[in-house]
Amino acid sequence: MFTKIDRNSKIPLNKQIYDTIINNILTGRLKAGDKMPSTRILSDTLGVARNILVEVYEQLTSEGYLEVVRGKGTFISSIEIKPIMYRETKKETDQPVKKSDIISFECGIPDLRSFPRNVWAGYLKESMFDMTSQECGYSHILGYKPLRIEIAGYLQNYKGICCSSSQVFITAGTTDAIEFLSLLFRNRCPNFICEEATVPFIPDIFRLQGYHMKTISVDEEGMSLKELQEVPGSLLCVSPSHQFPLGGTLSFERRNSICDWLLRNHNFLIEDDYDSEFRYKGASVNSLYQLAPDHVLHLGTFSKTLIPALRLGYMVIPETLLEEAKQLKFLLRKRIDLVNQIALYKFIASSKYTKHIFKMKKIYKSRMLYITSRLRELFGDEIYINGENSGLHIAVTFTNYRFDEHFSDILLQNDLAIDLLTDYQQNPSRETNTLIFGFGNLEVKEIENGLQRFKEVICNIKLNNSI
Amino acid sequence: MFTKIDRNSKIPLNKQIYDTIINNILTGRLKAGDKMPSTRILSDTLGVARNILVEVYEQLTSEGYLEVVRGKGTFISSIEIKPIMYRETKKETDQPVKKSDIISFECGIPDLRSFPRNVWAGYLKESMFDMTSQECGYSHILGYKPLRIEIAGYLQNYKGICCSSSQVFITAGTTDAIEFLSLLFRNRCPNFICEEATVPFIPDIFRLQGYHMKTISVDEEGMSLKELQEVPGSLLCVSPSHQFPLGGTLSFERRNSICDWLLRNHNFLIEDDYDSEFRYKGASVNSLYQLAPDHVLHLGTFSKTLIPALRLGYMVIPETLLEEAKQLKFLLRKRIDLVNQIALYKFIASSKYTKHIFKMKKIYKSRMLYITSRLRELFGDEIYINGENSGLHIAVTFTNYRFDEHFSDILLQNDLAIDLLTDYQQNPSRETNTLIFGFGNLEVKEIENGLQRFKEVICNIKLNNSI
Repeated sequence: MFTKIDRNSKIPLNKQIYDTIINNILTGRLKAGDKMPSTRILSDTLGVARNILVEVYEQLTSEGYLEVVRGKGTFISSIEIKPIMYRETKKETDQPVKKSDIISFECGIPDLRSFPRNVWAGYLKESMFDMTSQECGYSHILGYKPLRIEIAGYLQNYKGICCSSSQVFITAGTTDAIEFLSLLFRNRCPNFICEEATVPFIPDIFRLQGYHMKTISVDEEGMSLKELQEVPGSLLCVSPSHQFPLGGTLSFERRNSICDWLLRNHNFLIEDDYDSEFRYKGASVNSLYQLAPDHVLHLGTFSKTLIPALRLGYMVIPETLLEEAKQLKFLLRKRIDLVNQIALYKFIASSKYTKHIFKMKKIYKSRMLYITSRLRELFGDEIYINGENSGLHIAVTFTNYRFDEHFSDILLQNDLAIDLLTDYQQNPSRETNTLIFGFGNLEVKEIENGLQRFKEVICNIKLNNSI
Repeated sequence: MFTKIDRNSKIPLNKQIYDTIINNILTGRLKAGDKMPSTRILSDTLGVARNILVEVYEQLTSEGYLEVVRGKGTFISSIEIKPIMYRETKKETDQPVKKSDIISFECGIPDLRSFPRNVWAGYLKESMFDMTSQECGYSHILGYKPLRIEIAGYLQNYKGICCSSSQVFITAGTTDAIEFLSLLFRNRCPNFICEEATVPFIPDIFRLQGYHMKTISVDEEGMSLKELQEVPGSLLCVSPSHQFPLGGTLSFERRNSICDWLLRNHNFLIEDDYDSEFRYKGASVNSLYQLAPDHVLHLGTFSKTLIPALRLGYMVIPETLLEEAKQLKFLLRKRIDLVNQIALYKFIASSKYTKHIFKMKKIYKSRMLYITSRLRELFGDEIYINGENSGLHIAVTFTNYRFDEHFSDILLQNDLAIDLLTDYQQNPSRETNTLIFGFGNLEVKEIENGLQRFKEVICNIKLNNSI
């Protein structure tokens, strides 16, 4: 019965014995009424300390597997046993992703090689030791207070947003913020309106929560406002400083109209500010939050200014919604890893954050200049480019070509990945003449190689079409 | 107009100039039709490089604030300007929590002083450097694969759970898992059933998602099954190995009945296994997942075995639900901080995790023995204790006293915090004779002091009642 005991196993002896007995019961080898050997005998047989066996027997008795009959011994209970399917764990190993030579103009990825790992690793270590014992427990539900104060200061200095740190909630990135807001507004604003071309997870999450969905078209200046209806109970989501993916910056006139609309209808707006830090021409754009602080939820992220793997961001909640938002946060009990928050606090407070942004802005600006000038050299007036004043991607519209889903396959066959506008459309047309080139994570040399390959692909298509 | 420029400010010059112009427009000092100074003149006046001013003017023009009239100059646009409320950021500093002498028998907190910070800090640092550049981007949505493999191995060795690592999803703790499951089951199982006394956030989150709620009473052996109705489309949540907060272990007979019920009604069960690692008598209890692997979602956490601040846990998804669960995870795009996941992987793979549990189990066992024996010495047959075979808390029922909400205040006046059973009841009665003593984060000396204080409080009540 106990042939399975293994003294070299990581599994404790009592667990092994317990499992073996249960296994024997479940598989029918031990039947109701069978007498168990006494713990003394079993202890001798197995060479296992008797107190271990006593505990196992007690445990099995308390769980109803065994019954003690006074003066007679311990017996298998007469409880009904159902046959149980045991499954073997499949042997698995971590399969490394196959190295490939693909040049990916994927959107939304910053330069992953420039992240100051050394500095960050040092701060992580420091943070681990700076934490009080108390802080190792369940941390503050809205985020680490010193970090929230630093972010409020940063918002005032760099985004012109005047808010108190109590309005700043730390998030695990924008997805986390969106999930939270989809719960916060469920009753207040059943209508969700977003840009027709947008980052897909935002409408996905609101759709999941049963919102009534509406989209609004986008042009070179961002969201087009003619389609905005006078419907109260609406929540509008916009990326005003750099429309994703089409790259437009919302004009002051449109900003003003949106704020009028918000006030007139008592509606709310989510300002998805994912990359306004990287503005190459002119000063950074002021936020919608500034124009209508009681109606705008401003979202920021550290996924673009630092790296996505950190999962850190923030949202600014209007004072009018603060109590309600806090209550929801407390109800959900969802917290963010504290060590990371303290490390970020140190990084911002030491001015390393703004210095890093400054450094990256220069790098990205040179990449932006390179990709736009090379595209213009390669394609001349066959293309026009939108969104080159800021951010890590551009929208390139072709006057002579249209691309459909097969084009992605053709690109992949040529070791290239470039997003089509249709990848981001809520009601995608079958084909598009606009491609989205992300370049944040590509060095100039990689951009050059990628564009060369891309030029060849286009030439081949031309050739094939002319045959 | 530009008196505000400050060369020592952290705010870039172009941002300062941009803000000042906008401020002057918004406050009416610059009016529609006013001519702007040329960039050449302004450059001289301010001593600012002219290209900065050209960029600011271009930016303001593109946003609609300024208009260029060819051959005449740059003018303030005639767009309608609404007055805007500017708010000052309130000056805030981090207020340290007042040191206090309170002895807290708070539940669910492990020993925060025993966490091996040194080792963990080292792993964090290592992990930061081990990450490939690619891994700094958006990490795998279900979690770090090597960690998932380690957890699957751990589950097999220590909990008797046979599952593939692809069934293991990494979570940011149990709250995160519960929020996910409340979305996963919304259509499939509209009826949510939980124990009448439970950790409050679980029913809170399901209630928020509009589930039809039902509770089932709990006795010393855990959830009482008589009230379980034959209703398909039900999702049952249980803490079988150590009922929270009453401490009972679900008997094999009840486990069997629950599994019958699951199969008969095609229902599902959430097994909230928050502390089965700390079992002091007998082998660790086998999981419900083992008995009905297609119907049970097993939740585990590192908040009790390590520390809550890490925000790490896992869930095991039945194979039958795997595709659906993956799709939902991908839709939500929610990821967990990768550095922490790699550190945890290293911690488990190096066997430090199981060694840490072993060490903590000994510490907690001695605390459990201490608190139960001292309570029995102090109160004799005035009390009975439940849940002392495992975990970090006990339920103490008093035969002669009943406690209501005022009792918490009395305790606090005596620098004590102890939870009442009513704090965890879904339909709380006005008073209870059961108190829940958590002791995970208290050293023996603190337990002793706390119990002394508690004894005094009870004696005073006796005294007052007898007057």
